[in-house]
Amino acid sequence: SKFEYVRNFETQSTLLPSTYIVVRLDGRGFHRISTHYNFAKPNDIRALNLSNAAALNVCRELKDVLVAYGESDEYSFILRRETTLFNRRAEKLISTFVSLYTAHYIALWPKFMTDTPLDFKCIPTFDGRAVCYPTLAIVKDYLSWRFVDTHINNLYNTVFWTLVLKGGMTTTEAEKKLSGTFSADKNEILWKDFGINYNDEPEIFKKGSLIFKGKIRHCDVVKGIDEFFEGCT
Amino acid sequence: SKFEYVRNFETQSTLLPSTYIVVRLDGRGFHRISTHYNFAKPNDIRALNLSNAAALNVCRELKDVLVAYGESDEYSFILRRETTLFNRRAEKLISTFVSLYTAHYIALWPKFMTDTPLDFKCIPTFDGRAVCYPTLAIVKDYLSWRFVDTHINNLYNTVFWTLVLKGGMTTTEAEKKLSGTFSADKNEILWKDFGINYNDEPEIFKKGSLIFKGKIRHCDVVKGIDEFFEGCT
Amino acid sequence: SKFEYVRNFETQSTLLPSTYIVVRLDGRGFHRISTHYNFAKPNDIRALNLSNAAALNVCRELKDVLVAYGESDEYSFILRRETTLFNRRAEKLISTFVSLYTAHYIALWPKFMTDTPLDFKCIPTFDGRAVCYPTLAIVKDYLSWRFVDTHINNLYNTVFWTLVLKGGMTTTEAEKKLSGTFSADKNEILWKDFGINYNDEPEIFKKGSLIFKGKIRHCDVVKGIDEFFEGCT
Amino acid sequence: SKFEYVRNFETQSTLLPSTYIVVRLDGRGFHRISTHYNFAKPNDIRALNLSNAAALNVCRELKDVLVAYGESDEYSFILRRETTLFNRRAEKLISTFVSLYTAHYIALWPKFMTDTPLDFKCIPTFDGRAVCYPTLAIVKDYLSWRFVDTHINNLYNTVFWTLVLKGGMTTTEAEKKLSGTFSADKNEILWKDFGINYNDEPEIFKKGSLIFKGKIRHCDVVKGIDEFFEGCT
Ligand SMILES: Nc1nc2c(ncn2[C@H]2C[C@H](O)[C@@H](COP(=O)(O)OP(=O)(O)OP(=O)(O)O)O2)c(=O)[nH]1
Ligand SMILES: Nc1nc2c(ncn2[C@H]2C[C@H](O)[C@@H](COP(=O)(O)OP(=O)(O)OP(=O)(O)O)O2)c(=O)[nH]1
Ligand SMILES: Nc1nc2c(ncn2[C@H]2C[C@H](O)[C@@H](COP(=O)(O)OP(=O)(O)OP(=O)(O)O)O2)c(=O)[nH]1
Ligand SMILES: Nc1nc2c(ncn2[C@H]2C[C@H](O)[C@@H](COP(=O)(O)OP(=O)(O)OP(=O)(O)O)O2)c(=O)[nH]1
Ligand SMILES: O=P(O)(O)OP(=O)(O)OP(=O)(O)O
Ligand SMILES: O=P(O)(O)OP(=O)(O)OP(=O)(O)O
Ligand SMILES: O=P(O)(O)OP(=O)(O)OP(=O)(O)O
Ligand SMILES: O=P(O)(O)OP(=O)(O)OP(=O)(O)O
Ligand SMILES: [Mg+2]
Ligand SMILES: [Mg+2]
Ligand SMILES: [Mg+2]
Ligand SMILES: [Mg+2]
Ligand SMILES: [Mg+2]
Ligand SMILES: [Mg+2]
Ligand SMILES: [Mg+2]
Ligand SMILES: [Mg+2]
Ligand SMILES: [Mg+2]
Ligand SMILES: [Mg+2]
Ligand SMILES: [Mg+2]
Ligand SMILES: [Mg+2]
Repeated sequence: SKFEYVRNFETQSTLLPSTYIVVRLDGRGFHRISTHYNFAKPNDIRALNLSNAAALNVCRELKDVLVAYGESDEYSFILRRETTLFNRRAEKLISTFVSLYTAHYIALWPKFMTDTPLDFKCIPTFDGRAVCYPTLAIVKDYLSWRFVDTHINNLYNTVFWTLVLKGGMTTTEAEKKLSGTFSADKNEILWKDFGINYNDEPEIFKKGSLIFKGKIRHCDVVKGIDEFFEGCT
Repeated sequence: SKFEYVRNFETQSTLLPSTYIVVRLDGRGFHRISTHYNFAKPNDIRALNLSNAAALNVCRELKDVLVAYGESDEYSFILRRETTLFNRRAEKLISTFVSLYTAHYIALWPKFMTDTPLDFKCIPTFDGRAVCYPTLAIVKDYLSWRFVDTHINNLYNTVFWTLVLKGGMTTTEAEKKLSGTFSADKNEILWKDFGINYNDEPEIFKKGSLIFKGKIRHCDVVKGIDEFFEGCT
Repeated sequence: SKFEYVRNFETQSTLLPSTYIVVRLDGRGFHRISTHYNFAKPNDIRALNLSNAAALNVCRELKDVLVAYGESDEYSFILRRETTLFNRRAEKLISTFVSLYTAHYIALWPKFMTDTPLDFKCIPTFDGRAVCYPTLAIVKDYLSWRFVDTHINNLYNTVFWTLVLKGGMTTTEAEKKLSGTFSADKNEILWKDFGINYNDEPEIFKKGSLIFKGKIRHCDVVKGIDEFFEGCT
Repeated sequence: SKFEYVRNFETQSTLLPSTYIVVRLDGRGFHRISTHYNFAKPNDIRALNLSNAAALNVCRELKDVLVAYGESDEYSFILRRETTLFNRRAEKLISTFVSLYTAHYIALWPKFMTDTPLDFKCIPTFDGRAVCYPTLAIVKDYLSWRFVDTHINNLYNTVFWTLVLKGGMTTTEAEKKLSGTFSADKNEILWKDFGINYNDEPEIFKKGSLIFKGKIRHCDVVKGIDEFFEGCT
């Protein structure tokens, strides 16, 4: 039709060839979502399992994912350097990962969040981005970044919610108590005041979840980093 | 952590200010999806109602949608020229629309596609893109483009599937018969050979679905185009 | 050759169709350039004439320039909304305007800057950018922006250098005296202390230079703005 | 002023960090330029020396150039992987390299092209682009690509113009004679029919010009490639 010229306004951004592409999804407003659906604090094992199941399904469909890593409300998918998925078109990559992940997350919700029906007024959704990493060293650092972040956040959150839920503090008091503390201090609070050994916390909480060759692991990603990129340059 | 520098590799593309932004979603591989779930041919009213319900929910959450239009496996959302939604960041806009639409589509599936359980091996997903239109005239042409496309495709598909399903033709024969024909010819085939008046076909099939001020309509979009952009410049 | 694959790493950014494209060039480090070559302060008429001559030659070669406007060390070229120059490729547009302008500026230097030979250690160069403007009103505001900027800067600079060169102030004293003053104050200083009527300053200093239909003018751009875009939408 | 909002329409594209950036300049319409100024065919040593001198000056001013390579009407500047020149802003990089190179080319013209005054109607200009290369291997291939291209083109052009200028052929005849021939064939034509040993041609014609550590060389770039990137990763 005479209106077809409007297609010319479409632009495509192609991601630099021969770089590792990372697609990271992050839950939109999961602070509100986790409150609304009464997620356990600081970690809801059902929600984590749900997100892992969704991510596994994504990896099954989109073959060029080398390794994926999830924590909290986010998931990162690292694609092979050589991938030509969607001709490396950014919009297609982002929208497809987001849509696939969201679709499986919603579809699997009833299976994992039993007795917690979805509320259309508060439906979980995810934003997405695609980032290029030019070298193997840097993409390893990307994965390490997310892993270390998991550790830092989880240690903090674990102590914080212990202080609140078991220690009877207000959230403001807990925040104040933790401000300026180091890892060692936090471990000590847990142990001295609550008899909790942080090491005994579930691995999935402390380490996040990594998908490699179709299997989920909760391991020290930084220590094991080389394995996930074996054969990569 | 020392790994945080990897954030610097993120880029953001900001859409040109003061342009109409159109986010168009399109079902990925809906040829396969429609076959797998036995969609009625050429239009499955349940699937169309489902897509409209999902789009309505999207419009309810993201306030800057001026008008939305859907047909087949696609939906376009036209945002106000002045919108600052996500600071006009392309990735955020695309991923959020895709995720919200997908989430509602999947969540509403059981309600609309009764007796057709979702199969994880063949889950509906959508790709997305964002396009800027600099003038009112061109964004009107965008909407007209989709409307005219609906008409052209639907007339073709209606005759095609009538020839196949009622006329006993193979799909190859039907394709051949329709090749080179004009609208008038197609209307005549329908009428002469099958007693079908194309005008009597459901409006939703012929006109697609337009969401304006929270209501769905099936109207002549080209004729009524000015109404949807009243007050716009 | 087997090395040709490296071409695939090239990207092209196409500027949004049907928008006004403005290419703005600005002298790199002209603070240093103007000192090195002893430009008259605050305005060196030879340098302004040189930049106008270079810009005129640019307009002669690149036909889609609607109007161009120069002041200080910068020049803006406003292209027709419909231009397809270099298929609207940003890199081509930017580099071509910069190269053409630079080439003419350097080639014409001896003609305008008589007795001031070019020094290879301090050669004038320009950076460039391309900006899209979606509406007529906004592109008019762009031009008005540059014009008003000329006025503000020139009034300031005129008083500033009068205080220094005729009033015997140090630059710090002059800066201090002018800090917080309004236009009226500045006019008064000129008039009261130095008997200078700002209105009598050369038009090219006060108004900058505008190229329209191959002719240079020094006029009130804001007042006359409609003329330059007559027939545009 | 109230017009300042127009600045918000400017966009900046930042080149991916930690990639090699190549800025390639190419003469605009040098077919016409070389005809107009009667460049010697196929290589004009004055023009090549001029382009080398301009490039040397560019390298002197912009410190992050690792290696530069020129041939015919083009010059490539390869920047260090870690460069933060202009914060890696593409427009700034492109426009600055183009402007600097053009400025020196024009300023040096009289020195190299003696008795050939510049004609304002036919002034030499250059377009520019910036390309990112993620790995050392690929950026080496980039340089090799330009070198091999030089060889292929120069061998062809040498035989072609020998056939025309010494063999009395028309350009069409020469083209026809060379169509489908291999390197060996071309060397043989030169040797058998004209007693020319291609090896004896000037190195600058056969090898192009490479700038490394402030010095110009005409060497086998592919063979010596590792030297230019010593210490790079
Ligand atoms: N209680 C609980 N909260 C969780 C769990 N997983 C994630 N969250 C919450 C904690 C944070 O408030 C939030 C994730 O932080 P974000 O930085 O992604 O913020 P949020 O998603 O609210 O906003 P955003 O839209 O991403 O900017 O989700 C969980 O398992 N249990
Ligand atoms: N039977 C049936 N098919 C439908 C209906 N709505 C859409 N479809 C099918 C017809 C087309 O094969 C397909 C839409 O065409 P597209 O050009 O979007 O192709 P498709 O989604 O297969 O591939 P894509 O991933 O978009 O490139 O969806 C429906 O209501 N009934
Ligand atoms: N004396 C004198 N100076 C001038 C004349 N025209 C421009 N300039 C100087 C005044 C400013 O220092 C400078 C222009 O300001 P800019 O903001 O463009 O700064 P500059 O070019 O130094 O740095 P840049 O590379 O653009 O960031 O050029 C003139 O006619 N006479
Ligand atoms: N006679 C002669 N011609 C030369 C010399 N160096 C370059 N040229 C000419 C040969 C080619 O026609 C032209 C370079 O080829 P290009 O592919 O860059 O084409 P051109 O610059 O004409 O067009 P463009 O604007 O780059 O698309 O310059 C030289 O030393 N002598
Ligand atoms: O945690 P992120 O990476 O999502 O960081 P952010 O602060 O939410 O920033 P953005 O606006 O890029 O999502
Ligand atoms: O129908 P569209 O607009 O999706 O067009 P397409 O031919 O599928 O192209 P694209 O690869 O941009 O989705
Ligand atoms: O005067 P401009 O527009 O060049 O502004 P700037 O502050 O020099 O910024 P830029 O780094 O974009 O040239
Ligand atoms: O020789 P190049 O790389 O300039 O290639 P081109 O065919 O001239 O293409 P372009 O339009 O990118 O300059
Ligand atoms: Mg975020
Ligand atoms: Mg979140
Ligand atoms: Mg998060
Ligand atoms: Mg498509
Ligand atoms: Mg589709
Ligand atoms: Mg479709
Ligand atoms: Mg600047
Ligand atoms: Mg400047
Ligand atoms: Mg300036
Ligand atoms: Mg070219
Ligand atoms: Mg050329
Ligand atoms: Mg060339």
